[in-house]
Amino acid sequence: MQKKHISKAVINRLPRYYRYLGDLLEKDVVRISSKELSEKMNVTASQIRQDLNNFGGFGQQGYGYNVEYLHTEIGKILGLDRKYNLIIIGAGNLGQALANYVDFERRGFFIKGIFDVNPKLVGLSIRGIEIRLIDELEEFLKVNQVDIAALTLPKAKAPKVASDLAKWGIKGIWNFAPTDLHLVENVIVENVHLAESLMKLSYKLSEQQYPSDK
Amino acid sequence: MQKKHISKAVINRLPRYYRYLGDLLEKDVVRISSKELSEKMNVTASQIRQDLNNFGGFGQQGYGYNVEYLHTEIGKILGLDRKYNLIIIGAGNLGQALANYVDFERRGFFIKGIFDVNPKLVGLSIRGIEIRLIDELEEFLKVNQVDIAALTLPKAKAPKVASDLAKWGIKGIWNFAPTDLHLVENVIVENVHLAESLMKLSYKLSEQQYPSDK
Repeated sequence: MQKKHISKAVINRLPRYYRYLGDLLEKDVVRISSKELSEKMNVTASQIRQDLNNFGGFGQQGYGYNVEYLHTEIGKILGLDRKYNLIIIGAGNLGQALANYVDFERRGFFIKGIFDVNPKLVGLSIRGIEIRLIDELEEFLKVNQVDIAALTLPKAKAPKVASDLAKWGIKGIWNFAPTDLHLVENVIVENVHLAESLMKLSYKLSEQQYPSDK
Repeated sequence: MQKKHISKAVINRLPRYYRYLGDLLEKDVVRISSKELSEKMNVTASQIRQDLNNFGGFGQQGYGYNVEYLHTEIGKILGLDRKYNLIIIGAGNLGQALANYVDFERRGFFIKGIFDVNPKLVGLSIRGIEIRLIDELEEFLKVNQVDIAALTLPKAKAPKVASDLAKWGIKGIWNFAPTDLHLVENVIVENVHLAESLMKLSYKLSEQQYPSDK
């Protein structure tokens, strides 16, 4: 399967299209015009058409989009037509929240292991997945094919663990530690920096309270 | 206090500057050149200078930046020189993870209450903050001044709760529910859509495995 190069801005919008189309599917909506979709999503209809034209369009003049077809095709573009094995490093509240989020499985992300440094957590299990000691990680990765590691670790521990993971063959890191990871080029890092998101909110709040003089 | 209008792209980068400068402060670094900072952050030195020039510069020719001063000033721009009272709606793992994250307090975000629909959780407490029934929310907001509500609710419940919160005077919503909230204009919503972040990772992984033919 060959893919066309798509701009980052379009990629950033695709998961949102996918989510909206999934919601429509749940409501048994069969088709939708770009105008209706644009009103729901608060994006212009021309933006939607442009974005989807990157992948050949999918729409038909006078019909609009077939919801199920478009959902499936965007899913394929997002790589959701395959399965990913995922492990979680850090079995604190955030790691447990991720482990408990069944929606990930619906989208093809299967949690295969949860690891922690704390021996007290070892043997506990979350939705049938046992928490293991982080010392077992290397051995585990020799026996199990794992694509993605979610890191819910303190920032001091994350860089070392991430570089070990890269060495042991992990290709994707979903990083929740409040630090940037500098890894070899072919490992993909997607960051979720919660504190930074909260700061953006406080910026906007303080902007509203002390508005610009422009 | 009057603020200049700053572009969204700059705002998106400010929390990262703030984090890096905070890390330098912890290491007792007193000053840094834009070149050194740019190498650490993997941004060009000219980008850093441009970004900071939006706020009057802060740097001195031949000296670079004073780390503590720059950290403080960026903190002010981000609205971190004041305190925010925060409540968490949804006391599941994710809500608990947020409640346990002490770093928020260091930055001026104080958790004042945690609410859930589940009566079984009522009376439990997280770091001294009691979990209350969501039915008490309106009354609570009459008595307590709250700036921000973090929503860690299922998507079906989030829109109604969010519109209630707006009605009861909440100005900022930190939304973790996988749905967009359509609220009155003066309520600020900052979304953390975890599933969408994971989809971006899967897109990049599948792009790498089936690379572009361009």
